[in-house]
Amino acid sequence: MAATKGVCFPQGFLSSGIRSGIRKNRLKLDLALVTSQTRAAAAAVYTTNKVKGAPILVTQEHLADGYAQAIIVNSGIANTCTADGHAIAGAMCALVEQHAGIPQGDVIVASTGVIGEPLPIMPIATGMPDLVVGLKADSLNAAHAIMTTDTYKKEAGVTFTLGGKECRIGGMAKGSGMIHPNMATMLAFLTCDAAAEPSVLQAMLKEAADDTFNLLSVDGDTSTNDMLCILSNGMAGNPPVTDAESPDGKVLQGALKEICRQLCKLLAADGEGASHLLECNVHGAATVADARKLARSVVSSNLTKAAFYGADANWGRILCAMGYSGADFNPAKVEVVLRSEAGSVIVCENGAGVGLDEDFAKRVLTEKAIHIDITCGDGAADATAYGCDLTYEYVKINGDYRT
Amino acid sequence: MAATKGVCFPQGFLSSGIRSGIRKNRLKLDLALVTSQTRAAAAAVYTTNKVKGAPILVTQEHLADGYAQAIIVNSGIANTCTADGHAIAGAMCALVEQHAGIPQGDVIVASTGVIGEPLPIMPIATGMPDLVVGLKADSLNAAHAIMTTDTYKKEAGVTFTLGGKECRIGGMAKGSGMIHPNMATMLAFLTCDAAAEPSVLQAMLKEAADDTFNLLSVDGDTSTNDMLCILSNGMAGNPPVTDAESPDGKVLQGALKEICRQLCKLLAADGEGASHLLECNVHGAATVADARKLARSVVSSNLTKAAFYGADANWGRILCAMGYSGADFNPAKVEVVLRSEAGSVIVCENGAGVGLDEDFAKRVLTEKAIHIDITCGDGAADATAYGCDLTYEYVKINGDYRT
Repeated sequence: MAATKGVCFPQGFLSSGIRSGIRKNRLKLDLALVTSQTRAAAAAVYTTNKVKGAPILVTQEHLADGYAQAIIVNSGIANTCTADGHAIAGAMCALVEQHAGIPQGDVIVASTGVIGEPLPIMPIATGMPDLVVGLKADSLNAAHAIMTTDTYKKEAGVTFTLGGKECRIGGMAKGSGMIHPNMATMLAFLTCDAAAEPSVLQAMLKEAADDTFNLLSVDGDTSTNDMLCILSNGMAGNPPVTDAESPDGKVLQGALKEICRQLCKLLAADGEGASHLLECNVHGAATVADARKLARSVVSSNLTKAAFYGADANWGRILCAMGYSGADFNPAKVEVVLRSEAGSVIVCENGAGVGLDEDFAKRVLTEKAIHIDITCGDGAADATAYGCDLTYEYVKINGDYRT
Repeated sequence: MAATKGVCFPQGFLSSGIRSGIRKNRLKLDLALVTSQTRAAAAAVYTTNKVKGAPILVTQEHLADGYAQAIIVNSGIANTCTADGHAIAGAMCALVEQHAGIPQGDVIVASTGVIGEPLPIMPIATGMPDLVVGLKADSLNAAHAIMTTDTYKKEAGVTFTLGGKECRIGGMAKGSGMIHPNMATMLAFLTCDAAAEPSVLQAMLKEAADDTFNLLSVDGDTSTNDMLCILSNGMAGNPPVTDAESPDGKVLQGALKEICRQLCKLLAADGEGASHLLECNVHGAATVADARKLARSVVSSNLTKAAFYGADANWGRILCAMGYSGADFNPAKVEVVLRSEAGSVIVCENGAGVGLDEDFAKRVLTEKAIHIDITCGDGAADATAYGCDLTYEYVKINGDYRT
């Protein structure tokens, strides 16, 4: 049975993952490679952090022409804030050229892990033959190799039709801390077999990120190493998409948003220490920008997140987080409903509290996935943001991450 | 022996605090009153949250003329996001007029506690005679009555000289969650016996807040009810300060900053669940605005805060937080030193890690008060921000605050 998700879901992609030993006392896989059979249109969205990891800078150079053919990623060390980071990231790409025959200028490189520790090139060089030999149409090892504190691998897949041809997007991502709007320590790699112009692909990827990954928050810390990228190799045989506004462009845009949304939910649910997945749906905002600001402020609020950890319907904190979001809205019109598989409970109408069955609310909030439905009454714009609760476990994980 | 701090430290101020029973199962004091013997120049800085507590709106109206004579404050319920909030806040001021003879238009009103629950006026009305009878030149009860999750009362005092006259500022504040730059759930009440023009006092208070309270962060949540205010009654007999740039103006400005700084440190050290006080000193930034952004981003980062909880010298997170602060700086020039009573350790030079004695670093970071000294090399501007670590206890407190 063929895979229905992951980076090998579309035609013409192989992947591999090994344990190179970048970090001594780690048994887990730490080095991944993804290759396309042919050179592919490529696009990427990067962290907005002013301190950018060296791999980001090298990838930006390599994608300047809009094409790439491989992705190499290590976990464990971020290759950021070190003196030789740029040279090391470049060397990783050169190793791909040497062992897999793909020009280093067509290689995307990414790293995730501790900032400030030097990334040793030797384990990567030593492991490269095995990494290349291991390439196959199976994404399992690659999806594991990019994980850091993630508790499970994150893969998704979407099928769609362009010009009568079935096309596919596959993807893998890793979280799970330092995640906040505008590309936090979040790496997501998409593969696609549709044909599309690089510039159109870039615009679509940006729009998909704004509507999904940039509305995802685990802890408010925007990482130095975030990257969302796509390789689209055209092997599906569709007429190339050259206009985002064309019917085919809209189909591709929809598929891109869908796979990003699937990966976001997986990331949020696996936020460091998370015990609840939070999904905040804002309806009826004046503009999309306002809707997005409101939704992401709610899922980013430590106080709101801690309340959901305690299954406490402390909706005042939701109003508070909306209030400091920077969005334009009328607090007096706001309605808030909390919803889960156990039912839904209205907690605020016209900006003020309504009588609340605390026992029932507690039951609603004890479920794993919680929806916060906010209606503004200011317009017709919507947005959805994803996050998780703030738990003891988050503090524990981050109190001794390095040691 | 006269008090050396608190709202009764300057001449002509009395205060009182009682348990009115605003929240049923609370034994603690919950209602405070501060009065000045004469009508005083008044100034205030408020939350920037778009959802503003009703007391904020009423106080803004009452301070429009630049004068006030009393402050009434309750803890337990925030009087925010309720249908009748404005009327209740007005009624609290009217009760002060009725029982203490101070016109309601000269009363500052503030509330702190749960958002969205109606604030009952009856306990306040019933308690008012006792509250007024209890007025004396002792700030102990008032300082306790404004506390919520604070674990200790917060008072400060500063003495200075204007025109040959000794002047005093006293103050009390409460934290300790929902504290973040730009006036979070933070109430601070200053009293002063210097004579000053209201407009000059307002400008000076704003400047003091920007340099102190607005660089304080406990959890990144900007509250709906924040307020920093001052009553300055002129009883010290100094020639009124009418120009912030005059020699006397500078002395008063310095005293204001000093008392705000003292209260900030008390607030940060008592941040909800805090086990470490963090003080981030940024030196050599290009502008004061950049220095402030950098310093407060570092003390606001969940990841950095969690690392300090674990006494982990994970300085990469400090660089990361600087990077997403929005400040302009050159990452390649940054030096970071961690310092406490146990010694100091340099962790980053020229934006990259330096060899680190982990055992010694752990010893430095095990102390209660931690200084993060950052040198940018971009200019001559400095700033200091205050915060605390992120602990299990914070999550616990906020997971079941209401219940």
